[in-house]
Amino acid sequence: MMHEALEFDPTSTNLIDKAERDGVETIWDRKDAMKAPCGFGEKGVCCKNCAMGPCRISPVAGKGAQLGLCGATADTIVARNFARSVAGGTAAHSDHARDIAHVLLMASENGNYKVRDVEKLMRIAAEWGLDTEGKDPYDLAHELAERALLEFGKPFGKQIFLSRAPEQRQKIWQELNIEPRAIDREVTTLMHSTHIGCASDPESILEMAMRTSLADGWGGSMIGTEFSDILYGVPTARGTEANLGVIEEKMVNILLHGHDPSLSEMIVLAAEDPELVKLAKELGAEGINLVGMCCTGNEVTMRHGVRIAGNFYQQELAVITGAMEAVIVDVQCIFPALARLSQCYHTKFISTSPKAKIEGSTYIEFNEEHALETAKQIVREAILNYKNRDQAKVLIPQTKNKAVVGYSVETIIKHLDKVVNSQTDSFNTVKPLVDVIWAGVLRGAAGVVGCNNPKVKHDKSHVTIIKELIKNDIIVVVTGCAAQAAAKAGLLTMEAKELCGRGLREVCERVGIPPVLHMGSCVDISRILDLVSRVAKMKGLDLSDLPVVGVAPEWMSEKAMAIGTYVVTSGIDAFLGVTPHVTGSARFTDMLTNGLEEKVGAKFFFEEDPEACAEKIIARIEEKRAKLGI
Amino acid sequence: MMHEALEFDPTSTNLIDKAERDGVETIWDRKDAMKAPCGFGEKGVCCKNCAMGPCRISPVAGKGAQLGLCGATADTIVARNFARSVAGGTAAHSDHARDIAHVLLMASENGNYKVRDVEKLMRIAAEWGLDTEGKDPYDLAHELAERALLEFGKPFGKQIFLSRAPEQRQKIWQELNIEPRAIDREVTTLMHSTHIGCASDPESILEMAMRTSLADGWGGSMIGTEFSDILYGVPTARGTEANLGVIEEKMVNILLHGHDPSLSEMIVLAAEDPELVKLAKELGAEGINLVGMCCTGNEVTMRHGVRIAGNFYQQELAVITGAMEAVIVDVQCIFPALARLSQCYHTKFISTSPKAKIEGSTYIEFNEEHALETAKQIVREAILNYKNRDQAKVLIPQTKNKAVVGYSVETIIKHLDKVVNSQTDSFNTVKPLVDVIWAGVLRGAAGVVGCNNPKVKHDKSHVTIIKELIKNDIIVVVTGCAAQAAAKAGLLTMEAKELCGRGLREVCERVGIPPVLHMGSCVDISRILDLVSRVAKMKGLDLSDLPVVGVAPEWMSEKAMAIGTYVVTSGIDAFLGVTPHVTGSARFTDMLTNGLEEKVGAKFFFEEDPEACAEKIIARIEEKRAKLGI
Repeated sequence: MMHEALEFDPTSTNLIDKAERDGVETIWDRKDAMKAPCGFGEKGVCCKNCAMGPCRISPVAGKGAQLGLCGATADTIVARNFARSVAGGTAAHSDHARDIAHVLLMASENGNYKVRDVEKLMRIAAEWGLDTEGKDPYDLAHELAERALLEFGKPFGKQIFLSRAPEQRQKIWQELNIEPRAIDREVTTLMHSTHIGCASDPESILEMAMRTSLADGWGGSMIGTEFSDILYGVPTARGTEANLGVIEEKMVNILLHGHDPSLSEMIVLAAEDPELVKLAKELGAEGINLVGMCCTGNEVTMRHGVRIAGNFYQQELAVITGAMEAVIVDVQCIFPALARLSQCYHTKFISTSPKAKIEGSTYIEFNEEHALETAKQIVREAILNYKNRDQAKVLIPQTKNKAVVGYSVETIIKHLDKVVNSQTDSFNTVKPLVDVIWAGVLRGAAGVVGCNNPKVKHDKSHVTIIKELIKNDIIVVVTGCAAQAAAKAGLLTMEAKELCGRGLREVCERVGIPPVLHMGSCVDISRILDLVSRVAKMKGLDLSDLPVVGVAPEWMSEKAMAIGTYVVTSGIDAFLGVTPHVTGSARFTDMLTNGLEEKVGAKFFFEEDPEACAEKIIARIEEKRAKLGI
Repeated sequence: MMHEALEFDPTSTNLIDKAERDGVETIWDRKDAMKAPCGFGEKGVCCKNCAMGPCRISPVAGKGAQLGLCGATADTIVARNFARSVAGGTAAHSDHARDIAHVLLMASENGNYKVRDVEKLMRIAAEWGLDTEGKDPYDLAHELAERALLEFGKPFGKQIFLSRAPEQRQKIWQELNIEPRAIDREVTTLMHSTHIGCASDPESILEMAMRTSLADGWGGSMIGTEFSDILYGVPTARGTEANLGVIEEKMVNILLHGHDPSLSEMIVLAAEDPELVKLAKELGAEGINLVGMCCTGNEVTMRHGVRIAGNFYQQELAVITGAMEAVIVDVQCIFPALARLSQCYHTKFISTSPKAKIEGSTYIEFNEEHALETAKQIVREAILNYKNRDQAKVLIPQTKNKAVVGYSVETIIKHLDKVVNSQTDSFNTVKPLVDVIWAGVLRGAAGVVGCNNPKVKHDKSHVTIIKELIKNDIIVVVTGCAAQAAAKAGLLTMEAKELCGRGLREVCERVGIPPVLHMGSCVDISRILDLVSRVAKMKGLDLSDLPVVGVAPEWMSEKAMAIGTYVVTSGIDAFLGVTPHVTGSARFTDMLTNGLEEKVGAKFFFEEDPEACAEKIIARIEEKRAKLGI
């Protein structure tokens, strides 16, 4: 039976049929069992923030409870729930970034973790006001790491990276008093303000959520990205493949799933270890085949070309192929269901983070101090498991698509350098991009990001919107599971230029880039902020002036709520393809989708239909162009 | 109509009847309108942590959804919700403490905020390893404040105050790896670990929640308490009165409600200002009558004897008297309903904190830099409002009771010094208390704390349990709204010794204390931790060895969840009179009410019937005594 949610994706459907035959359960079964979701929860009008409740506001005005026991209105409850989801998302990104900073602190010349990009180290250190002159890179790295760790907890001052934004934008934040202070403080104080009997004014709750979200985008996420580059190298354009077809019948398959590159980098190293490769061959495999999923997948593909097995909704399917020796995870977006599922196959499901112990998994704590050693142990477990594979249970879909990944800001600029008129312009800027946008060759740019969500047909919204945008000469940058949807759909290739309007096609050809640029994982949306800030600053404009948008067609996580909020607060419209749990308050919904524009020059759009969403994006981009007179 | 929830309290019932006549709404009306609470929410099996949901687990095994869409079990969902409530509570206490530390940092000889207790400053500074020798108190205060601010965000190390606990206890925390690091980090990392796709193992989620809770009890709350004492003075025993009868017919009545003493201390000062007193008299009032509620009420009563108008559930009733010129609030436990209610009377409802803007209130931002000035402005608003009082609408219940409040650890020890045998023992210790417990004169001690909750009859559980305990020679210490319930019931008086068993009565008489000791606000539960730690250390025991318990008969806030968790994690049983939202997981419930004992030597008891609860407490105390062989 083809599941409705997947009519877009026959590859996955085959595996879902297999799951049924194998008698195992998937997210689609669980969705069927869940039946209709709670209407109160969907609308955001259920409050569990104290034990007088739970309270819920009747959707019919004048009938049933219109107030929580404390007197909280639907507006207050919706605002609080929204704010707490921003707190959760910010916490996730930032706690990840903290770990990266800790790894940089322990990096050493002869250790497992090294400074791979000294130039970037120097650049960031200088940006942060450190004296770099004549310093040993590791001393400098440690100094920078300590400074970064203080960004999470310093008692005074605001986030250092805010200064990357155009001055007009910084001024807006200052005037609204939403410049984020220490990241953890913003999370904590937002949890406090949403505690029973604190803030009830939805406007102020939203502003506090905005401040917290900025601590994500221009704080934790940006630290996560930049420090990962220092440690593991700035991503450069490289070819890879994507979809479940990258799983190999005759190799030891290891799925890397989660978010933190500090684990996956070591696994990549371990999988290249000659002894382990030899062991794999001794046990009858042709070698070790690492494949990635979700953001860990993005991290390793853009730095090592590790192939992408799929995105969020395919995590179970990778196991159901019956050919996965190990699934190795750290934090975030990991179905706890993988534990039970793996037990139905031979797959070893290995969790590694003390922050995310998963019941029913094999727990091998990943300790950064013995990182490579632990990574080798984990890879060995996978190899030794190869013999347990049941060939009768193997079904590997042949589907996969080529993709080019790894478009960091640095890499994009290097590509743009190719088309610089060296008579008039200097290298190493975004000017060529600015020029084609201002000339109208490109109408604008869209960042398409986010997760999968069973509320919409998987990948369909991502792909539909991206195709429509590039057809209309809007260049697209992608991260997260959206990036993997694009990769699977063949949109991260030079060939995809054929799907583009004439202007974008010409840009692709001249610059030598696909029309859809893979910029990394979720934390790497900070790369997009960096890129658009460079464009704005080059024109002396604010971010809200630019014909650019953010789109999260299939988002589901609290991180996406934090991202959407910092994107809008940064002056860029955010289009959400899944309506957040706020509609129980017409007023709060109006703040998000209307009122915010007056404050920060951007707002949310909720549009679940991908075609309509693309239309609205295009209209908005043209509106911005008209305002600029271009 | 006497509301069932209030049959215990005719004073309040009269005002509820008046509310009905006045056509205004109270929490009891809202509770009626809410009807049955959501069964999923009550059981804790509703998950809103991502937008694939909301998900909810069917209570009938084998029927309906047994797993969230991600595969989360009821155990996981319950554990995550529990953990997030601990995060919310810890955030609230700690963010309050941060503000106190900021105020200490700005304290100056000639400013609004001074160091009132230099001895305590010296003592805490020395405890924290600062060099106090020959230092100017303000320099030292600022140094200490900066050190305190780092407790919220320092990248390395654990909470300094942990070292106050007995060594055995510290070792347990170390072995479980739950020594809290920076406070805000613990909140953030717990929010991260409860994000979709992170921790699913309920055991580990509980341990992380325990670590976070310790960052409250031995971190934020303890800092809040100790630094408040430095700034505003160590509380000493003093007389006051409690219940709505403290509202005066012929005076300008101002209700102080909320939590942070930095606001209320300035209001106390402002209300003594001769010019303002004169103004009040010029406008026909006999003077200014400050009264307190909730924890702000506790803070000002134990340092200034400001009378207590009531506790959490009476906040609306204070306005319904029609004689309240102003309600001044800062953060936490403030009904947003007060805004609409105040508009039905002449009451000015003044909110002051940017962290807790309340819709429909008059917002006068309290800026610590111009603290007294702002406080005077607020008091002036109240005075000017006196003329608007509608005498026809006034109904002030005559009920009030005398109380003695202010039993800080220092004050308790001073009282104990009275009965020290100076031939054999030294002064300034808890030895006399230890001696009477070991001799069996007192059977043990109970901290009765927490809120009000309309799920139980207001104050009835507090009072019933306390009376039962003192009758059985168990000395009781109280904080928060529980303390105010005790005050209203006349239990904070010397006369209450008549309700005690023979042993406790004798102790009261010899030491000159009531059988129920008011130890302060919610953050002051840290005083109780300090006290019991001194007792344990004196006997070379762990906290879990002592015949002491914590009881929260009518709790409702997330703070109470954090408190309950740190109390248990500190080795002291916590008895909850309202069952937390965890019963949807028999396993997690068992961890709390059973399994924890093996780990930390203490556990939760859920017992909604106050008589049964008292019985269980007594049994548990006797069990501990038997183990000690005393």
